[in-house]
Amino acid sequence: MSRPETSSRLVMKFGGTSMADLERIRRSAAIIAAEVRAGRQVCVVVSAMAGKTNELVAWTDGAGKPAAGIDPCDDEYDAVVASGEQVTAGLMALTLRNMGHRARSMMGWQVPVLTDTAHGRARIEDIPPDNLARALEKGEIVVVPGFQGVTRDGRIATLGRGGSDTSAVAVAAALECPCDIYTDVDGVYTTDPRIEQKARRIDRISYEEMLEMASLGAKVLQTRSVELAMARRVPVRVLSSFITPDADGRLPGGGGTLICDEEEIVEKRIVSGVTMSRDEARVTLLGVPDAVDRPALIFRLLAEASVNVDMIVQSQSRSDASVNLTFTVGRRDAARASDLMQSAKAEIGFAELRVDEDVAKVSVVGVGMRSHAGVAQTMFTALSDKGIRIQAISTSEIKISVLIDAAYAELAVRALHGAYGLGYV
Amino acid sequence: MSRPETSSRLVMKFGGTSMADLERIRRSAAIIAAEVRAGRQVCVVVSAMAGKTNELVAWTDGAGKPAAGIDPCDDEYDAVVASGEQVTAGLMALTLRNMGHRARSMMGWQVPVLTDTAHGRARIEDIPPDNLARALEKGEIVVVPGFQGVTRDGRIATLGRGGSDTSAVAVAAALECPCDIYTDVDGVYTTDPRIEQKARRIDRISYEEMLEMASLGAKVLQTRSVELAMARRVPVRVLSSFITPDADGRLPGGGGTLICDEEEIVEKRIVSGVTMSRDEARVTLLGVPDAVDRPALIFRLLAEASVNVDMIVQSQSRSDASVNLTFTVGRRDAARASDLMQSAKAEIGFAELRVDEDVAKVSVVGVGMRSHAGVAQTMFTALSDKGIRIQAISTSEIKISVLIDAAYAELAVRALHGAYGLGYV
Repeated sequence: MSRPETSSRLVMKFGGTSMADLERIRRSAAIIAAEVRAGRQVCVVVSAMAGKTNELVAWTDGAGKPAAGIDPCDDEYDAVVASGEQVTAGLMALTLRNMGHRARSMMGWQVPVLTDTAHGRARIEDIPPDNLARALEKGEIVVVPGFQGVTRDGRIATLGRGGSDTSAVAVAAALECPCDIYTDVDGVYTTDPRIEQKARRIDRISYEEMLEMASLGAKVLQTRSVELAMARRVPVRVLSSFITPDADGRLPGGGGTLICDEEEIVEKRIVSGVTMSRDEARVTLLGVPDAVDRPALIFRLLAEASVNVDMIVQSQSRSDASVNLTFTVGRRDAARASDLMQSAKAEIGFAELRVDEDVAKVSVVGVGMRSHAGVAQTMFTALSDKGIRIQAISTSEIKISVLIDAAYAELAVRALHGAYGLGYV
Repeated sequence: MSRPETSSRLVMKFGGTSMADLERIRRSAAIIAAEVRAGRQVCVVVSAMAGKTNELVAWTDGAGKPAAGIDPCDDEYDAVVASGEQVTAGLMALTLRNMGHRARSMMGWQVPVLTDTAHGRARIEDIPPDNLARALEKGEIVVVPGFQGVTRDGRIATLGRGGSDTSAVAVAAALECPCDIYTDVDGVYTTDPRIEQKARRIDRISYEEMLEMASLGAKVLQTRSVELAMARRVPVRVLSSFITPDADGRLPGGGGTLICDEEEIVEKRIVSGVTMSRDEARVTLLGVPDAVDRPALIFRLLAEASVNVDMIVQSQSRSDASVNLTFTVGRRDAARASDLMQSAKAEIGFAELRVDEDVAKVSVVGVGMRSHAGVAQTMFTALSDKGIRIQAISTSEIKISVLIDAAYAELAVRALHGAYGLGYV
């Protein structure tokens, strides 16, 4: 894959493992230097040192929750945890200067990266590009701490875990340039290589497919960053930070995955990848009266408590006129969903509640599904051949997900990876 | 000592040992809560966790110096090390909320604490009090990270090591209120209690005396903070943070040292304290031609290199028409002073250079000296009685310092402490 040479500006993002210590920061700086040497204006977005954010979060937890009557705003949580990226931004600027480059950090409040006031999980609203552009035009490498921004009333805000990818894409959107995400893997794979050795790196993948894959358990990119890249049409490359420029200071060609418009992908596949997630829980209500208003009641209760429901299956009960209702929620919401149902037991009128966390969601993703029949059939046959029972199904235009017994998760991934011919031959 | 009840506002500063971990932060927060319960509007200034700043400084050192041609500005050093106080400010606000108080942090750039652009050792130029006052009037405890400020072009700046004391006094000056400095000792002592067990806590001490004592080796307060308190007439109390409010949430009375105007001190002493510093080096030039321009040349060279000279002694050489010139410099400047002299040896024309770091400066400080004769006589007699030879002397209106062999330092301190009747009887 060759780099699109359309823009002389570039955002380069380095994650926590690429910023883990001074030696790793130096290696990341060498990659940045190679792009600068190639004539690009570079804006760098950095994560905190690996493990640092967890330490800071633990301290804020240790300080305890606000007492009754005190506003439980997460503004101070943000002030504490945002410091991790402030440190690495400064250290990266110092390291680049040590290598002979002009560089400076620019904190979220200095850029500014303007966010809403949802502290702890803020959304970026705007990044006026003037300050960034002025520094870049002066020949400075600008280092921006990821994950942090500032509210319009001047408080530090953070974007929620993994927010640095989103920061990088947002900065690239503001600067109207591509975004390279350096991480500890060298791209997006057809499936998790730790599960299926035959997994292949994908050269190019569409925003839509990447969005589904990120939502469905591929941990390479944060979902929100892909949404933003798609909305703002930012070309994003995922690359390994474990590379070294050659003797001439040039980066090795090839490698990485470009996330781009579907139109820019010549060789289209029906299925691009297989994902797996154990972050699911299945809730089953047995013996629900077969009245039209009951599902509405159940899902209204869940929605009001901000519990997202993914799959839903309704089946006739064997014994009487009642139905059984099964749905899946994120594992961290399972207890809350269960409590909600129990507290409304009389109103809903179910006989029994079961929660099963021993499930996995396996999905196949591909834009080619839109125009190809038989994709689902291939999936069901492959699973059936291995004796894997499907507990629930959900689909979108470009993906099919099935819920199965967790014990069969890896087997299912390998079976589907083979059935769609995704691996090396 | 009872607190002056003239102001309902109070700045409370907590040092690194008082912010060392969540348990220490909780204990400090309990002291703050007692002042709030007593009806005061409180602005808190905090240091980083003990040891944290050293870790951050080590990282910036590890990142290396800027390459040739790159501006060696310490702006990025500041961005990194300022993060230590950002963390403790947030954690203190969270801890106070957990205890049922309304509290918020306000970073240097949010207050703003405006500094000059001398990054790494910036000076506070102005603190517009509006943001602080508005939050205090709303009933919030405001937590300000010490040591940090912001330049007028919006970069983070730090004040140099120990700068948190100065931050606290500057905030108190801006708010026109007293400043309590909580630390790991319970006040200012007549001398270092580790050297002289009979050392007594001083109830009240004048700004002038405290300034001399801080400059001369008493480590309780940073010199610059005392200068600022004197210039802005901020009453400063030094107190131990190892106290606990009683069952009614009241702080124990007594304790601490009030640093205030001389006029507010009823019981005046001739000598208030004895200090000792090993941070000296003695430089001797033997056989300097006895020409009037030589001392001027020597001290011009040192001044141009920003080497501060404290004591100076010129004496006739035994053998010929030349003189011997002795001066003292800070120990960290000794090598530089020696190099400067050697490189100008031909011009100065001295025969031999000697540098001795095995010296100590012992001083007595007291505003009473102004009106009392015989203070120096008492000092010289006390030292002579112990067989301690005086190598050099320097005086100001309210102090006398002598340079002696380092081996006799503690002995000299105890002798002087006794000679002026400073100890318990």
